Amino acid sequence: MPHITVDNSLPGIRSLMAFSPDTAGPMGHLANLLLRTNEGLSMADRELIAAHVSFLNDCFYCQQSHGAIAVCYLDGNTDLVEMVKKDYVHAAISDKLKSLLSIAGSVQKGGKQVTAGQIAAAKQLGATDRDIHDTVLIAAAFCMFNRYVDGLAANTPADLSSYPLRARQIAEKGYGNHIFSSPQPAAAEASVI
Amino acid sequence: MPHITVDNSLPGIRSLMAFSPDTAGPMGHLANLLLRTNEGLSMADRELIAAHVSFLNDCFYCQQSHGAIAVCYLDGNTDLVEMVKKDYVHAAISDKLKSLLSIAGSVQKGGKQVTAGQIAAAKQLGATDRDIHDTVLIAAAFCMFNRYVDGLAANTPADLSSYPLRARQIAEKGYGNHIFSSPQPAAAEASVI
Repeated sequence: MPHITVDNSLPGIRSLMAFSPDTAGPMGHLANLLLRTNEGLSMADRELIAAHVSFLNDCFYCQQSHGAIAVCYLDGNTDLVEMVKKDYVHAAISDKLKSLLSIAGSVQKGGKQVTAGQIAAAKQLGATDRDIHDTVLIAAAFCMFNRYVDGLAANTPADLSSYPLRARQIAEKGYGNHIFSSPQPAAAEASVI
Repeated sequence: MPHITVDNSLPGIRSLMAFSPDTAGPMGHLANLLLRTNEGLSMADRELIAAHVSFLNDCFYCQQSHGAIAVCYLDGNTDLVEMVKKDYVHAAISDKLKSLLSIAGSVQKGGKQVTAGQIAAAKQLGATDRDIHDTVLIAAAFCMFNRYVDGLAANTPADLSSYPLRARQIAEKGYGNHIFSSPQPAAAEASVI
């Protein structure tokens, strides 16, 4: 049961964003900027980083949600997404993405855990400053989103079949694109997932 | 030295926000919404929560910055702010704020660390759902800001005299109020500190 009174018909972070529509606006905007672009890192790469960090933070709702969105971008390859979440070193992904997932994993533990060696390795494998910036900020942002969801004990659907439907909507339309044209969106329109 | 090439004339998160002005917009907006209101929790309470979480995350820049802003709101009482950062249980603050700092400390460890007992205690001491929501989201947001700063090894002024000046500006004007009227602010205008 959530720690505060929210609309129980909404799952996970969506119930919290409906409770607090003002803060939902910039949170949805940030999610869109970080996850809905192929500039440098692909949208699939970005969702994989989000799902991996959410897995490390043991946030069931976020790892299922963002894992399901990554599956949409990766032609339904659920096995690959599960592998990246739990054991990316042995996943069939590029060495560059592995080096960035390593950085994201350090950020999850704490900012100072990122080493100069990890950064140098990522750069040698072709990561740009923008790639490294986005990786660190995606990982940091999911340390916020995950704590928001679980810190308030938001409702988390245990039925895994509910996640792919919402994931397809996000994969097609993004995290509330209206936010770009409305600085104070209505609660029901804003979403991180 | 920062892990990516940023403007070294800017300290801490400001150098990162100048590197990435698009994401700086919603981050500054979120900081304003969470920290620049006296609705429920006072601005002093909110900055104390931010400074305490930044202390727990060992983020020198953020704990100095937000500690200095709290000092501005608390009539220059540096000793009280240092006490709240490091040992709030023995600080001269309300039991209600202590109960919320306890929740913030659990959020810093991980969302699932927050217990029903902590929530019940806070409610018994007068905390509303809004107070609890804001406490959890401030703590979660600083788990993002702290990781952003240290995960990219942003420049951190070691000279403590530089923080109070910037803190006074924030205490008077907020974290870039322009953000409310401009969804895509220029880099130099957006700030979390």
